[in-house]
Amino acid sequence: MTPNDSSGFTLGALAERLGARLQGDGSRPIDGLATLKDAGPRDIAFLANAAYLKDLADTRAAAVLIQLEHAEACPVARLVLDNPYLAYAQLSQLFDPFLARPTGGIHASAVVAEDVRMGENVEVGPNAVIEAGVVLGDEVVVGPGSVVEVGARIGDGSRLHANVTVCRGAVIGARAILHSGCVIGGDGFGFAHDGSRWHKIAQLGGVVLGDDVEVGSCSSIDRGALDDTVIGNDVKIDSQVQIAHNVRIGDHSALAGCVGIAGSTRVGRHCMLGGGVGLSGHLTICDGVHVTGMSLVTNSIDTPGVYSSGTGAMPNAQWRRNAVRFKQLDDIARRLARLEKHERDA
Amino acid sequence: MTPNDSSGFTLGALAERLGARLQGDGSRPIDGLATLKDAGPRDIAFLANAAYLKDLADTRAAAVLIQLEHAEACPVARLVLDNPYLAYAQLSQLFDPFLARPTGGIHASAVVAEDVRMGENVEVGPNAVIEAGVVLGDEVVVGPGSVVEVGARIGDGSRLHANVTVCRGAVIGARAILHSGCVIGGDGFGFAHDGSRWHKIAQLGGVVLGDDVEVGSCSSIDRGALDDTVIGNDVKIDSQVQIAHNVRIGDHSALAGCVGIAGSTRVGRHCMLGGGVGLSGHLTICDGVHVTGMSLVTNSIDTPGVYSSGTGAMPNAQWRRNAVRFKQLDDIARRLARLEKHERDA
Amino acid sequence: MTPNDSSGFTLGALAERLGARLQGDGSRPIDGLATLKDAGPRDIAFLANAAYLKDLADTRAAAVLIQLEHAEACPVARLVLDNPYLAYAQLSQLFDPFLARPTGGIHASAVVAEDVRMGENVEVGPNAVIEAGVVLGDEVVVGPGSVVEVGARIGDGSRLHANVTVCRGAVIGARAILHSGCVIGGDGFGFAHDGSRWHKIAQLGGVVLGDDVEVGSCSSIDRGALDDTVIGNDVKIDSQVQIAHNVRIGDHSALAGCVGIAGSTRVGRHCMLGGGVGLSGHLTICDGVHVTGMSLVTNSIDTPGVYSSGTGAMPNAQWRRNAVRFKQLDDIARRLARLEKHERDA
Repeated sequence: MTPNDSSGFTLGALAERLGARLQGDGSRPIDGLATLKDAGPRDIAFLANAAYLKDLADTRAAAVLIQLEHAEACPVARLVLDNPYLAYAQLSQLFDPFLARPTGGIHASAVVAEDVRMGENVEVGPNAVIEAGVVLGDEVVVGPGSVVEVGARIGDGSRLHANVTVCRGAVIGARAILHSGCVIGGDGFGFAHDGSRWHKIAQLGGVVLGDDVEVGSCSSIDRGALDDTVIGNDVKIDSQVQIAHNVRIGDHSALAGCVGIAGSTRVGRHCMLGGGVGLSGHLTICDGVHVTGMSLVTNSIDTPGVYSSGTGAMPNAQWRRNAVRFKQLDDIARRLARLEKHERDA
Repeated sequence: MTPNDSSGFTLGALAERLGARLQGDGSRPIDGLATLKDAGPRDIAFLANAAYLKDLADTRAAAVLIQLEHAEACPVARLVLDNPYLAYAQLSQLFDPFLARPTGGIHASAVVAEDVRMGENVEVGPNAVIEAGVVLGDEVVVGPGSVVEVGARIGDGSRLHANVTVCRGAVIGARAILHSGCVIGGDGFGFAHDGSRWHKIAQLGGVVLGDDVEVGSCSSIDRGALDDTVIGNDVKIDSQVQIAHNVRIGDHSALAGCVGIAGSTRVGRHCMLGGGVGLSGHLTICDGVHVTGMSLVTNSIDTPGVYSSGTGAMPNAQWRRNAVRFKQLDDIARRLARLEKHERDA
Repeated sequence: MTPNDSSGFTLGALAERLGARLQGDGSRPIDGLATLKDAGPRDIAFLANAAYLKDLADTRAAAVLIQLEHAEACPVARLVLDNPYLAYAQLSQLFDPFLARPTGGIHASAVVAEDVRMGENVEVGPNAVIEAGVVLGDEVVVGPGSVVEVGARIGDGSRLHANVTVCRGAVIGARAILHSGCVIGGDGFGFAHDGSRWHKIAQLGGVVLGDDVEVGSCSSIDRGALDDTVIGNDVKIDSQVQIAHNVRIGDHSALAGCVGIAGSTRVGRHCMLGGGVGLSGHLTICDGVHVTGMSLVTNSIDTPGVYSSGTGAMPNAQWRRNAVRFKQLDDIARRLARLEKHERDA
């Protein structure tokens, strides 16, 4: 990895940028970011987790992002700060060669409707399609093969990777990152039954993403039935996630891969949903709830904290015996109560 | 929301269209559909669920779709009918501005093979690709960036949204709605193992969707190995669903988001699978089975009814204690039986 | 199904190709592959599973791929060999009309950067996009609407179906099959929290797929944070699968639909993950582990074998009673232990 401008950085410049206390030679050139284990003499590394203390003594890094309490143990130069993981995140942006790419403008093969309103420095990739009435803010990038349907609005600095679909009228805030294959604003799943067959409920609501939202590859966020589906600011959504119509997600929440949220459920602020978590419809999940991976939530939650369901994997032979007993569990409980009563009466 | 023709509607015209009994001024203009709570004086609202009775007294709607038993309590005009939710679905179609879009014809940037056969009023969007031998029925719409591969057939009135893929030889019935990012007819997952490595089984079967099928964003329905994968009429499939090769789904069934069905399983008619449900392969599920969200079905089901598995989320500390005990469950059951025997013998 | 060259095959030629012992007339023409039940007089069928012995007596197939032990019972010609299922896989390739398609070259509507390096007989479909610095090996096929981003490399004989995205710098080995809608190399899900909001960690690692890898429709494999995400040789990945950043999958492993693997987990060689299985992050799963469908694995596994979690579906009324008891399970276990102690003390 090389820095995304040609000049590289000095250790001193990085320390200043991060507000870190420099212990070492500030003129040292840095052109990469790596783990303690893999770092070379022009890389900066980080110690964000005590589990990696074992790699510290032997690191060949030029310098290490480190907390004060571990600085003594560091055999090379240090940038001392409170949150090395955050500093790593901040530096990672500098070392992303992709971010430095100059804009390509509007590619000749892109199909852009005449009335599209564009800010400055917009890039529309090859074979992308921008339909009528769309508004693209400043510095928006629409990747190759992506489609922005009629009337959608994309905020300043947002990037749609390749083969993204933003459906009719969807509203995307500033600095969104939409990964390839994701679909924002497909129809919610709504049908009325007449006793013999289904009648589609046209999904007349929209979908609104706040600022600083990221959506992973192949994820889908459906539009609302009458009202909008609303994703708050700074919400981070991983790959293969499904968010149904009229769901609302509060600011700063994070959803890991394969999460599914059924219709009209409201998730609070600063929530974290582990991979594969499922939330039933019409629930209210308060702020600050963490749900561990693959848990099923069927009731509203009004107390912050960590919630779980399910059982971890075990050898199949053991599991078979126990899973059969699960079907007898109520019976087991009743029999136990009877024995207890018998003992009390004895 | 405004009606999808410029003339709007009167309340009387809507009553007639729905076969509803009108109580109120039939000349009243209506140009939107909304919830009881949000409706304004030119909107029609609906009471489909007693849980929303609380919103009835204060509604500002022009009129309400309502059952006879609640009509008295309605402070504004009423369209009285048996199934207000169904009436809402029917009206929603009228108020969908998207459906009123005039056809765009074949866009100049679309790549359409010479021998494609098209019905009347077909629309093919920008940068769509229609390969050789494809047949598109009347009023078919193929969205921007969508690909219809060699020999596929799309029935009258079907709509492919943006970035849809219909694979080689797939057969789609009439009035299908295929949402963005879905893939119909990708290869099934079939391999033979030779003791050291995998050999691909070419997926020579096809995929056939009946009439009135809807498939959600980013869902995938795989083609068969030798025979076809078959989706019945009026089957509704939500987003992020995976249907494996040679699965058969009976008419009028509905599959919520993130459902996965393994190979060769047959699902009956009028079944409903909740979000995240998983069906093992080679099962037969009879008509009229409902499976609740995130349940795992590993055995065939021959009795209609509601089925479930799993356990709901609870606070993590409580869950940890119980999940550990699950691994001891067979042991618990045996110990209980021993105590019972001891008691009987005493 | 017809063979993929116009000349068809004789039974003798197929026997020779498979190294099978022919019992019957080798001049018999064969132009299709079918199940015992559906085969006609010019089809070859196979008996790979004793469950289908019932169909053997009445088969109308020209010949059957069969093990020696069942050959006697076969009423028609036989190709006798040890692994009929493997032979079926091998023949299926011959009968796939799709594989015989002549290459279409570089379609005029494809957008191919000037510096792209291509091997021989490369096909790039309509409206595909190949960005700068890409390397495409011999016989590579890039389907319509697919995007290969800057600097990616695709090995000889690999096929990208329609609407696939291969992200910047991704490395795909030889003979890969990437199905429609899949995304290889989207950003991993990495953020640092500053106490109030998220900061994106640029995903500077890459993604490397070995040779003979297949990836199903709408699946996503994320790029690494600093190091690469690595998929071994001959790994088979079904549809709707999510593989997070820095995961490593060993050679010859197979992942069924809807599997989700969290960041940095390592899966060994010859592992099989059933549909919907979830693996937590930072685990190590040894070689030869099979995990049954929808199991959750939260701990590393160091012993080959079959592992499971969860409980199968049951009627909802029964399930409700048992699921409630699950929340009392630790209490049940404690009460049982108390009774046992009481009995011992008595």
